[in-house]
Amino acid sequence: MAKDKAKKQPRPKAQTPKGFRDYFGAEVTERAQMLQTIAGVYHRYGFDALESSAVETVEALGKFLPDVDRPNEGVFAWQEEDDGWVALRYDLTAPLARVYAQHRNDLPTPYRRYAMGPVWRNEKPGPGRFRQFYQCDADTVGSASMAADAEICAMLADTLEAVGIPRGDYIVRVNNRKVLNGVMEVAGILAPAEPEKFEHERGIVLRAIDKLDRLAENGVRALMGEGRKDESGDFTEGAKLSASQIAILMRFVDAKARIDERLLQDAETASAQSKAMAARLLSAQKPKGKGGNFYSYRSDNPAQALRNKVTIDYLRDLVRDSEQGKLGVDELEQISSLLEAQGYRADRIVIDPSVVRGLGYYTGPVFEAELTFEIFDEKGRKRQFGSVAGGGRYDDLVKRFTGQAVPATGISIGVDRLLAALREKGRMGSSAQGPVVVTVMDRDRMADYQAMVAELRAAGLRAEVYLGNPKNFGNQLKYADKRQSPVAVIEGGDEKEQGLVQVKDLILGAQIAENATLEEWKERPSQFTVPRDQLVAKVQEILDAHR
Amino acid sequence: MAKDKAKKQPRPKAQTPKGFRDYFGAEVTERAQMLQTIAGVYHRYGFDALESSAVETVEALGKFLPDVDRPNEGVFAWQEEDDGWVALRYDLTAPLARVYAQHRNDLPTPYRRYAMGPVWRNEKPGPGRFRQFYQCDADTVGSASMAADAEICAMLADTLEAVGIPRGDYIVRVNNRKVLNGVMEVAGILAPAEPEKFEHERGIVLRAIDKLDRLAENGVRALMGEGRKDESGDFTEGAKLSASQIAILMRFVDAKARIDERLLQDAETASAQSKAMAARLLSAQKPKGKGGNFYSYRSDNPAQALRNKVTIDYLRDLVRDSEQGKLGVDELEQISSLLEAQGYRADRIVIDPSVVRGLGYYTGPVFEAELTFEIFDEKGRKRQFGSVAGGGRYDDLVKRFTGQAVPATGISIGVDRLLAALREKGRMGSSAQGPVVVTVMDRDRMADYQAMVAELRAAGLRAEVYLGNPKNFGNQLKYADKRQSPVAVIEGGDEKEQGLVQVKDLILGAQIAENATLEEWKERPSQFTVPRDQLVAKVQEILDAHR
Repeated sequence: MAKDKAKKQPRPKAQTPKGFRDYFGAEVTERAQMLQTIAGVYHRYGFDALESSAVETVEALGKFLPDVDRPNEGVFAWQEEDDGWVALRYDLTAPLARVYAQHRNDLPTPYRRYAMGPVWRNEKPGPGRFRQFYQCDADTVGSASMAADAEICAMLADTLEAVGIPRGDYIVRVNNRKVLNGVMEVAGILAPAEPEKFEHERGIVLRAIDKLDRLAENGVRALMGEGRKDESGDFTEGAKLSASQIAILMRFVDAKARIDERLLQDAETASAQSKAMAARLLSAQKPKGKGGNFYSYRSDNPAQALRNKVTIDYLRDLVRDSEQGKLGVDELEQISSLLEAQGYRADRIVIDPSVVRGLGYYTGPVFEAELTFEIFDEKGRKRQFGSVAGGGRYDDLVKRFTGQAVPATGISIGVDRLLAALREKGRMGSSAQGPVVVTVMDRDRMADYQAMVAELRAAGLRAEVYLGNPKNFGNQLKYADKRQSPVAVIEGGDEKEQGLVQVKDLILGAQIAENATLEEWKERPSQFTVPRDQLVAKVQEILDAHR
Repeated sequence: MAKDKAKKQPRPKAQTPKGFRDYFGAEVTERAQMLQTIAGVYHRYGFDALESSAVETVEALGKFLPDVDRPNEGVFAWQEEDDGWVALRYDLTAPLARVYAQHRNDLPTPYRRYAMGPVWRNEKPGPGRFRQFYQCDADTVGSASMAADAEICAMLADTLEAVGIPRGDYIVRVNNRKVLNGVMEVAGILAPAEPEKFEHERGIVLRAIDKLDRLAENGVRALMGEGRKDESGDFTEGAKLSASQIAILMRFVDAKARIDERLLQDAETASAQSKAMAARLLSAQKPKGKGGNFYSYRSDNPAQALRNKVTIDYLRDLVRDSEQGKLGVDELEQISSLLEAQGYRADRIVIDPSVVRGLGYYTGPVFEAELTFEIFDEKGRKRQFGSVAGGGRYDDLVKRFTGQAVPATGISIGVDRLLAALREKGRMGSSAQGPVVVTVMDRDRMADYQAMVAELRAAGLRAEVYLGNPKNFGNQLKYADKRQSPVAVIEGGDEKEQGLVQVKDLILGAQIAENATLEEWKERPSQFTVPRDQLVAKVQEILDAHR
């Protein structure tokens, strides 16, 4: 034997890099299936496919990741000899801005495009958090119309239903960055003429609001004021705003709770029955944990029909002294009325001031889709599944390249999270059926066995010959078991002579082995001897019986 | 207006990194369609999906790229703080070896898997050569049986037919590394006991044989001897073999031509008619350019049925003094007879000694699928399309990790090249139909227009509202034209009042505009006024008429 070079050097470790993983079988095909379904909806809405490369120049990507301050943090980047710094894309939006700027003369305006594929984040991996994951985006570039945003929201709702999330199990929540800016203006920490003034204070306020789930109202209030000591005793410096400033901001922070109250008051004027129902739906549960109180969005809630109107009135009152804020409320109203006209009511798409998206580039409406059913987390606690998609309007991303403002809006679906949700609910089909396995009784008659699988495949059935060492027949059946094969085919020398084959129903066999009595076992044979020319028909019959 | 930060720093360039490109619309969907078709065939053969991450440790990937000597050359690699050097995968085989070594206790043996996705090569880009491209692989790990190799070849032929390459337009060529090693042994430049001796000479010989297309027989012969002066006057040192050594090697190099001759002689004994046909098919064309003389493989050639047998006899004679060589020929014979039994004759899968695959890790059978039809290259010259898939047996890749030999064999399809071939032949469907465009005559009635597209989509039709500035109606029709829309819908104020809509057949409109007489134009109106509630029916009717 030739000497083995590999022995001279240490063996490489058979491991993925940290934070990466492999996906097997149904994990892969179910994702492919979902992407295809989503692409179908996007396509029907007139969106065109785009696939940009995984690698972009660092310069083109820009720095728009949430919570990232240091250069290149959050991305996988490296330096090319001839091409400077390049990086793996961290989302599909930054590449779209580059694509549109590069090809704008050849693309239609507005340009509706969808894209799907992996993105990479150089972040600390955690349980269920990987450094490569799939996104599936749809964006409209070149339209400033709120009809574009409304369309994105409607399409998102349609998409969730198309992949198997029934109405009532999801909610698309819509807010507008301009409204929050308006509130900041009214509170005196944003001056349109001096956009950089109070940047420090606004940063503290934004981070505090984004953490409302964790800090609760009191914590947020403390961070707006002098500061907050956390459980470990660490003190976080506050924004040091006045009591009246804080009061204005808090009217925004607890807007949802106040709107719930107002809807409840409205319900007082309704019938006793619907009043009771509204009370139950609206006031019983306080927002708790990520995702908040979804029951109040339900369509069987009589107060629900009014929610978007009440919310818009509430926000308009809140920002009445800010031009930007009023513009934001007008935009929300347009989106709401366009959706209403198409039959998307607040039980599916709702105006909700509590949505604050992390990414820095949003300039107007922001969207978030959450699944409202409860699951058990890794510690066995009930919690709502939470966000599976997010997006918004980003009018300045293309301008980075061209200097000309190009309005754009879009949505990104976290496909892996959505798949996890469907699996959690047992809604993924059992598409993972193994192949029919033709066993090998006589190594020299491999051609006969190949001919059998060829016949089975020609009939559209999934089939294979056992290709391991055929000596130990038990290993062949163990293999079939591991493959989750529904049927095994056996043709020994005797059968061959008589023109017969044996067909073994492995699913029934397993059921019988588990719980049948001897009598049942006799009555329901799981192994059949049939003429060779009836092989395909018999296998088909067994597969049909288990359908 | 707020000041724009972007003005303070130079604008980023809107460009992909060198060697990368964007794919639009049908380019993306046609590829997705092809991948789905291929996955369907692989699945029917019992192969399971696997998706590994794009990023691997450099150590796990190893260095198996062809023509790469310097460390990390050929791959995109970078150093991670906590994880050492990592890189983008350059193929799907090296990751499979890592996956199998990592998960072997949980995977069935043999493990049949398929994988599809982009791979990255850090090579000099050229026309039509990109640094990111798609591969679609199928491999069987853990089977030493030639039935595994035969199955891969049969599946490859089935796959090519499934994606639209008809029988006769492709050929799967099979060779065996052991045969070439046997020839080297017979020629005295490979000693089984001293595998490293004559490595220099073998290197020269291999590179020369691999360049047969370009150098022709005389060039190869010169490189085996003293050396060769190329057209520019540069001299390449030869392997300095003796005349008798060169004679042995050349019997391998021109094996195909000699086998063609022998088949022609056999045909002499046949009828005059078939003799004439065989002569035409076999001797008329000398191998020329990449891919060689494919006509001689055609099934209507009476000599064809004998080709594999004649080839195997020829090779067996050539390597009769080498154990390894004889083993290689036996393997080819097994593959050939298994395929023959399944009806895959030499017009689809042929034993062909001229196949030399570039990758260093193959240890036994090697495969190559070529398309045999002619296309015109960028300089307008006719040439055969050439290779679209390749693979072979690599029994040592998993051993790198585990120390235990694990036999494996597989194939990789170059999906982008295959797509290019189908487009070249006009065999990609015109799936690129644009959406129905509902135009906007009155900005305030956006909700009405949205309702129309909602109805069209509910009927399964692709439809969208124009979302650009609606002021200039001409722009809307130009947009519809750019989108390749089949139909435009128009509802102005007058129509609205009368409960009517206008439906414009844009395909017919374009045809008429191009070549109709005035009379025809009058007779075949391309614009229809219908009641609003007949919108969907009318659009459907127009679309059906153009099907």
